[in-house]
Amino acid sequence: MADIRVCMFFAVLLVFVAEANVQHEKYNARPAVVATSGSPWPLPRNMTTSQVQYQVNADDFKFTVDAGTPACDIIIQAFVRYKWITFGPRSDTLKFRRRPNKANAVNQLTVHYDKPCDQYLSLESDESYTLAVTGNTATLTANEVWGALRGLETFSQLVLPQGSGMFVINSTLIRDAPRFKHRGVLLDGSRHFLSVLKLKENLEAMAQNKFNVFHWHIVDDQAFPYESIRFPNMSKLGAYDDNHIYSQADIQDIIEFARVRGIRVVPEFDSPGHTQSWGSAISNLLTKCYNNGSFDGSYGPVNPADESSYNFLDSFFGEVANVFPDHYIHLGGDEVDFSCWESNPEITEFMQDKGFGKNYSLLEEFYMQNLLNIVSSYKKGYLIWQEVIDNGAKVAADTVVEVWKGGYIAELAKVTSLGYKTLLSSCWYLDYISYGSDWRNYYTCDPQNFNGTSAQKALVIGGETCLWGEYVDDTNVISRLWPRASAIAERLWSDESVNSVSAAEGRMEEHRCRMVRRGFNAQPMNGPGFCPVEFP
Amino acid sequence: MADIRVCMFFAVLLVFVAEANVQHEKYNARPAVVATSGSPWPLPRNMTTSQVQYQVNADDFKFTVDAGTPACDIIIQAFVRYKWITFGPRSDTLKFRRRPNKANAVNQLTVHYDKPCDQYLSLESDESYTLAVTGNTATLTANEVWGALRGLETFSQLVLPQGSGMFVINSTLIRDAPRFKHRGVLLDGSRHFLSVLKLKENLEAMAQNKFNVFHWHIVDDQAFPYESIRFPNMSKLGAYDDNHIYSQADIQDIIEFARVRGIRVVPEFDSPGHTQSWGSAISNLLTKCYNNGSFDGSYGPVNPADESSYNFLDSFFGEVANVFPDHYIHLGGDEVDFSCWESNPEITEFMQDKGFGKNYSLLEEFYMQNLLNIVSSYKKGYLIWQEVIDNGAKVAADTVVEVWKGGYIAELAKVTSLGYKTLLSSCWYLDYISYGSDWRNYYTCDPQNFNGTSAQKALVIGGETCLWGEYVDDTNVISRLWPRASAIAERLWSDESVNSVSAAEGRMEEHRCRMVRRGFNAQPMNGPGFCPVEFP
Repeated sequence: MADIRVCMFFAVLLVFVAEANVQHEKYNARPAVVATSGSPWPLPRNMTTSQVQYQVNADDFKFTVDAGTPACDIIIQAFVRYKWITFGPRSDTLKFRRRPNKANAVNQLTVHYDKPCDQYLSLESDESYTLAVTGNTATLTANEVWGALRGLETFSQLVLPQGSGMFVINSTLIRDAPRFKHRGVLLDGSRHFLSVLKLKENLEAMAQNKFNVFHWHIVDDQAFPYESIRFPNMSKLGAYDDNHIYSQADIQDIIEFARVRGIRVVPEFDSPGHTQSWGSAISNLLTKCYNNGSFDGSYGPVNPADESSYNFLDSFFGEVANVFPDHYIHLGGDEVDFSCWESNPEITEFMQDKGFGKNYSLLEEFYMQNLLNIVSSYKKGYLIWQEVIDNGAKVAADTVVEVWKGGYIAELAKVTSLGYKTLLSSCWYLDYISYGSDWRNYYTCDPQNFNGTSAQKALVIGGETCLWGEYVDDTNVISRLWPRASAIAERLWSDESVNSVSAAEGRMEEHRCRMVRRGFNAQPMNGPGFCPVEFP
Repeated sequence: MADIRVCMFFAVLLVFVAEANVQHEKYNARPAVVATSGSPWPLPRNMTTSQVQYQVNADDFKFTVDAGTPACDIIIQAFVRYKWITFGPRSDTLKFRRRPNKANAVNQLTVHYDKPCDQYLSLESDESYTLAVTGNTATLTANEVWGALRGLETFSQLVLPQGSGMFVINSTLIRDAPRFKHRGVLLDGSRHFLSVLKLKENLEAMAQNKFNVFHWHIVDDQAFPYESIRFPNMSKLGAYDDNHIYSQADIQDIIEFARVRGIRVVPEFDSPGHTQSWGSAISNLLTKCYNNGSFDGSYGPVNPADESSYNFLDSFFGEVANVFPDHYIHLGGDEVDFSCWESNPEITEFMQDKGFGKNYSLLEEFYMQNLLNIVSSYKKGYLIWQEVIDNGAKVAADTVVEVWKGGYIAELAKVTSLGYKTLLSSCWYLDYISYGSDWRNYYTCDPQNFNGTSAQKALVIGGETCLWGEYVDDTNVISRLWPRASAIAERLWSDESVNSVSAAEGRMEEHRCRMVRRGFNAQPMNGPGFCPVEFP
C-alpha cells in the first residue's frame, strides 16, 4: 500500500518535472553558471539523498524536541528563527497555498540532543548532528544543542520553495560534523564603525554559513569605539565621535545575539602597536617619539619600559576578561614599528638595563610576555598574530597563533612544530578585492596544506576570514563579505576532499540566491545570471 | 544697522566655531582624509563665498518662482524634491528646533528662468545657472528650467545641517555651467537584472551628481529583458524569466522619472554582436555557425546576408524610436566575432557576390550602414561604439562615437579628425574594481587630453562611466557605483583646471557623507574615517 502511494506520488512528480523542463527550455537565458537545487552549503560530511520527495506545509509545520531532551532557551529561540528562515521570507505574501497530500507530507522535525545546554559555545563544543528525512518523519539528533543548531540550518536549506506557497523536501540522510573547530569572521570596528544592527545581520549570515567565531577587531589606531567601564575616557576621547561608540549594553546585545546562534565572540585589543587611539585617555601609555634629541609630538607603540603601562593593562584586561565570556581574548601583537622605540632615550636605557642590546624584538617579546601573564592571571586563553611567535615569546600551551602573512605554508609548519594551535587567515583577506569570481581562490586554499606530521595537522584548529575596515562600513559590508566568505565557510566545515571549484560553482550559485531570498544583499559571484527571488 | 546686525551675528558665530574646534580636538580620531564643510560637488565653474553665514529654517523655507517665469511641472516637482533633499532626511526626527533669528535668516529661494520648458532635456539644452545668496535673499536664475534644476542641487548642497534642526548657508555667488553636454552613466540590464526601484534610486543619485544621460544597455547576449510591443516573444523567450522583464509601463516610468530630473534616457540595442538572446524569438535572425560543413547548433551575430534581418530591424527600431523620446539611440556595433560568419556558406557566397573578398570588416560595415540608414529613416540620431568608425562605416553627421577601448588618446584624435562628435568611457569602467581609493584614477582622466585642434576638442561632447553587469545587481549596484562615479561627474562638469586629487579629496569625503546622509549606501573611498550621519 505504501509502495503504491509512493509510485502514484512519483508519477505526479514526474509530470511536474517535465513541466519544469519545458518552462526552462523556452527561455534562452544564459547564466554563466546554472544553480543546483536543494544542495546545502557548506556541504555535509556524509549525505545521501533520494528522488523521493515530500511536501512540507509551512502553516502546519512544527519544530519540537522529544521527551528526553533537556530544555533550554537556545533551542526554543532557534525554533522560532528557523520557522521564519525556512518558510517565512516570502510565504506571508502568498495568496493561497496548495493543500498538501498529508500522506506524503513531512509535518514535523523532532530534535533530540543528549547533554544539558552549555550557555556558550566553546572550542571544545560538539557540533555534530544526524538529520534523517525518511518517510513522513524528520528527525535531528545531536550530542549537544550546538549540533542541533547546525542541523536546523541544514534542514532549512533542504526545504525548497516551489511557488504557490508549497515547499518540498527530498528523502535525505545526513551525518555531519565540522572539519575544524574554529571557523571565524573578523570584522573591524575601528577603521570604520559598523552599527549593532549590521553586526547582527552579519552574525545571522554567519550562522547560516555555519561560522562559529566572530573575531571582533573592535579598536585600532584610528578609533577606540569600545566603551570601557573602568576607563570611559578611552572611547570619549578615542572614538570618532559620540555616535560611533559600542556601549556596554551594545556589546552584551551582540554577545547574546551570537550566543543563541552558537557563535563565540572573541574580542581583539591589539597591542603594543595599533594603539594610537588609546593614547588620549591614558597618559604615558604610548611611547614618546624623539627627533634630534627632543620629543617631536608624536607617539609610538605602548611604552614597554614604563611599569605604569602594565598597571593599566592589568586593570583594562581584567575588565575585558569579565565583559567577554569567551575563554579567549585576541591580544594582537602584529606590525610593531620599532622606530619610535629606537628614538626614545628612556627605552634605550631600559634596553641597556635588560641587556637586550639593539634587538628590539626582545623588547617586544618582553612586552608580550608581560601582557600574556596578565591575561593568564584572569584565567583566559589568548589568540595572537604570528609575529609574537616569530619573535620568540613563550606563550601558554593553549595559545592559538593566527597566521596572516605571506609564506603561510612554511609558517603553519613552524607554528605547529612548536606545538601551538594555529589558525589560518593569510589567504582569506576579503578586504582585498578584484574583478571576477575570486571566491574560487579562497575555496582552494587549505589550512592543512603544509608539510607536517599528523600531530601537527591536528593543531590546525581552523581559520578566519578577515574583512578589514579601511574601505568597509555599513554601506557595503554585507555585499562585500557575502557570499565570498561562504567559500571559506565550506573549506572550514566540509571534508578536505570537497575541493573542486567546478563541482562547487552551481552550489555556490544556489547558496548566493538562497541568501538573497533570505534578505541578505549577497553579491553576484559567477558572472551573468539571476536569482529566482531577487534582493530585497 | 545691517552692518551692526551682521557684526553681532558674526560674534555669535565665532563662539560657535570655537566650541566646534574644542569638540573636534578632544577626540583622537584619525580619519585618513578630513572632510570639507559646505563645498558642492561637482565644483561650480565660478564660486565666491564669504564667512558671513545665515540661518535657514526648514519649516518655513519656501522654494518659489518669480512672476515672469513660465510655469511647468518640472520645476514644481523639483521644489517638492528639494525641500526633502535639502532638509528632509533627518529633520523629521528632531525633537525641537532652535528659533532662527529672522533678521539673519534666508527663508526663500526665488527661481527664475526665461524659456518655456521643453518636455525633455536634449544635447542642445542649456544647463547654466546663477545662484546668489546675498543678504537675506537667495535667487537662482537660468535660461532654461534645466539650469534651474542644476542650481537647485547646488543650493541644497550649500545648506548645512547644524544639529538641533538648524541649518545655515554662507553668503555665496555662483555662476555655473557644465564643461561637457553629455555626462552619462551606463547600466547593464542584461547580465544581471536591475529593478525599476533600484534604477530610480540610481537616477536620483545621478541628478544629485549632475549627470544628465542614463545610457541603458538594456539587452545583451545573456538576456533580453526589454518587453517589445511588436515582438513580445523576444522577452518571453529571451529574458531570464517572467520576473526579469522591463514592461512598457516600467520603461515609461523610468523615462518620466529621469525626465523631471533633467536626465536623458538613451537605450542601447547592441548589434550585430551581443545578440544571442534575440535569437529564440526571431527565427533566422542570427547566423548559423558551421563546423565541418554542417550547422553545429550554435549561432553567431545577426545574419547580415539575409534580407529578412533588415526587415526585422526596420520594424523593431521603428518601435524603439517611438518608445524612447530621446533623439539618440545607441546602436552598439562592438566586439563582433567573425568566426561564425566565416564558417557559414551562405555568408561566404554573399561575400563573393558583394566583392568583399575575405574582409569581414566590410561585411560588418555593410550591416551597420544598413542599420544606420534604417534608424535615420525614423529621424533618430545614433551613438555607436568606436569599432563602427574603426571599420570605416560612413555615418550621419550628428553621430556620436563612444571611445571605450585602450589607446583612447589616439582614438579620440582620430575620431575627431574625422569630424565626429565623441564620448570617452575607456578610463571609466567601474565594473573593474581594485583595492583602495581608485576614484583618484578616474578623476585625473580627461577626455580632451589628446593632440588635436580646438575644433577637434570641441567635438568631445563628454563621457560616460560604464558599470557593466557581470558582477552587479540590486545587491551592490549603489555601493559599487557611488561615490566612484562622482569623480567622473566632477571631471565632466567642472572646469578643466579642477584636476588636483589632493584638493578634491576632502570635498570627496564630504560628498560621500552627504550622499550617505541622503540615504544612498555610497561606500567609503578614502581609507579610515566616518560620516557624521551614517547609512541608513
